[in-house]
Amino acid sequence: MQFTFTVTKTDTSTRARCGLLTTPHGSVETPVFMPVGTAATVKAMPQEWLEQLNAQIILSNTYHLYLRPGEDVIRQFGGLHRFMSWERPILTDSGGYQVLSHQALRKISEEGVHFRSHLDGSLHFFSPERAVEIQQLLGSDVLMAFDDCTAYPVTLAEAADSMRRSMRWAERCRRVHTDDRQVLFGIVQGSVFPELRQESLERLFEIGFFGLALGGLSVGEPKLLMYETIERVSERMPSGPRYVMGVGTPLDLVECVKYGIDMFDCVLPTRNARNGTLYTSRGKISIKNTRYRTDEGPIDEDCPCLVCRRYSRAYLRHLYISNEMVSSVFNTYHNLHFYLDLMAKVRESMRLNSFSNWERLFRERYVATE
Amino acid sequence: MQFTFTVTKTDTSTRARCGLLTTPHGSVETPVFMPVGTAATVKAMPQEWLEQLNAQIILSNTYHLYLRPGEDVIRQFGGLHRFMSWERPILTDSGGYQVLSHQALRKISEEGVHFRSHLDGSLHFFSPERAVEIQQLLGSDVLMAFDDCTAYPVTLAEAADSMRRSMRWAERCRRVHTDDRQVLFGIVQGSVFPELRQESLERLFEIGFFGLALGGLSVGEPKLLMYETIERVSERMPSGPRYVMGVGTPLDLVECVKYGIDMFDCVLPTRNARNGTLYTSRGKISIKNTRYRTDEGPIDEDCPCLVCRRYSRAYLRHLYISNEMVSSVFNTYHNLHFYLDLMAKVRESMRLNSFSNWERLFRERYVATE
Repeated sequence: MQFTFTVTKTDTSTRARCGLLTTPHGSVETPVFMPVGTAATVKAMPQEWLEQLNAQIILSNTYHLYLRPGEDVIRQFGGLHRFMSWERPILTDSGGYQVLSHQALRKISEEGVHFRSHLDGSLHFFSPERAVEIQQLLGSDVLMAFDDCTAYPVTLAEAADSMRRSMRWAERCRRVHTDDRQVLFGIVQGSVFPELRQESLERLFEIGFFGLALGGLSVGEPKLLMYETIERVSERMPSGPRYVMGVGTPLDLVECVKYGIDMFDCVLPTRNARNGTLYTSRGKISIKNTRYRTDEGPIDEDCPCLVCRRYSRAYLRHLYISNEMVSSVFNTYHNLHFYLDLMAKVRESMRLNSFSNWERLFRERYVATE
Repeated sequence: MQFTFTVTKTDTSTRARCGLLTTPHGSVETPVFMPVGTAATVKAMPQEWLEQLNAQIILSNTYHLYLRPGEDVIRQFGGLHRFMSWERPILTDSGGYQVLSHQALRKISEEGVHFRSHLDGSLHFFSPERAVEIQQLLGSDVLMAFDDCTAYPVTLAEAADSMRRSMRWAERCRRVHTDDRQVLFGIVQGSVFPELRQESLERLFEIGFFGLALGGLSVGEPKLLMYETIERVSERMPSGPRYVMGVGTPLDLVECVKYGIDMFDCVLPTRNARNGTLYTSRGKISIKNTRYRTDEGPIDEDCPCLVCRRYSRAYLRHLYISNEMVSSVFNTYHNLHFYLDLMAKVRESMRLNSFSNWERLFRERYVATE
């Protein structure tokens, strides 16, 4: 058995937990944040620096890699790990979210989705079977079931239809997934309707997956409704790894950890970095602000990262204003450090039985501005 | 005496030489290539990686830094070294080339140059005294005299006028340069006219500079005329450091080394990197070429750099085609390694008395495509 997931510690006052996910490419301590590496690269981050940041696992994207560089290139390299020279674990999402998010460019049937490439408009077809096949070619450690993602808001009837299709697709994915060098995660759908989420969860449990994800969140629903949905579903999830897809802010991560969530991915730290928005222990700052023009201090006094130890806010502002590429490199490094370090602190405080205390102190300092 | 320049080795069959330039920020082995860091950053290169590449000295730009981040910011940091967190030597050019290269945006008088900012069109004035003053504020180790650069082609009369103005300006620079933590280089002008170059050289010799540069080259003149000019002038240059500004290709550097040139800067390796043009021991390649789509080999089989040891041509092509920023980071790293390594090999072969042999082997393999 190349894959195991063991809960190593549980919090006494919340459902927070630490775990260890082992894969053929090494093990991952949870709760974990997975930097997003859409096109076989975490934007603006050389692999050398991801390793230096102790990124344990990254997420990459079936849809994007299928279109570019293409299956033949990946096949030639024997998978994504060797193609991008990343030896640690990789999770790939199935492409469902991407092929479905361009309403105008796709047509859904029971069989799968016909869609047009966002690059050149060419026609393509993904089915559950194809999505698994491509992910097997990619050789990711964790692959995701191909699902039908619903937008928000959506009617109960539409959400039910969509969720049930996703469940039939999940079963088809499960049936064709045979490679024991990879594990498959199912994705709970059902929008914000508790009864649909419950039905979806039960169906996935019957099919049987190594881990489960919550999909269709952070798509425009009110924050409290998102929390409520995650809390309610996660309570009933089996003890395998639990992954909330595409969420979220630092406070979202800390909140979801308390519901027993183990895995996260989100473009926020990397995308914000490129927009000059930086995370600090006291909240976000915008490095382009004129107030930092002559500021000799680091982004965050309390941050031990390479960027904070060496470069001033004034210099980082100058690089941003001057449109210099290293601005994105430095900002991304710092923001990923913040997210990865946040999860490391969660794990550490859990080990020390001081998670609630740590959480209180973190929330006291961190001023949310969104 | 914080600054010294010592010739440590001379070639027996050419005028090539090795030297050691010592500065308050450390010493520089020559011949040396200086990466261009226009806006207080070598584009796409974190300082950490410049250090890893053993970049001994970088060039930065008075005009650009004066406009952005501005004198007050640099003053607050006590100079450029601390502002950009670069502890090794820095050479700044005077801004002459930049303020004069936008014909429409400037007006020259004996006093100096009125020019408009390329950023916001605001009006500014540089004189020789101002250019030295700003460079003293920047705290660069080597500062360049403020000169009037002529375009190519130019008449003898225009070139003479311009050169003589540059010489009067050089004298004014020399007069106001008093900070012994910096050394001032004069710049030989006179376009491609031997008698003007000779007059300029004599005048600079009379004024007295720590080092001399050749300016106004690589501005469109035929390659052989450029070589002839450099060869002729360098033969008569005093034994202090000799610097050819803005030159050139790998073959240009090797050629100029034979004329006794010690210092070079050029945007080619960094700019080409961002355009996907990479230097190899066999000549340039364009990484965007379809032939590299599935190519598992490194950019250059013979290159020991971090990028060649880890990443394939296919992956680097994918990053370039996908417009990923790390494409520029990796390409710049490799190209700078090529240029810096080229000069390291020149120095090493000189030490081993095998420079001519090394040069022959280098030229046999390196296929120039421009």
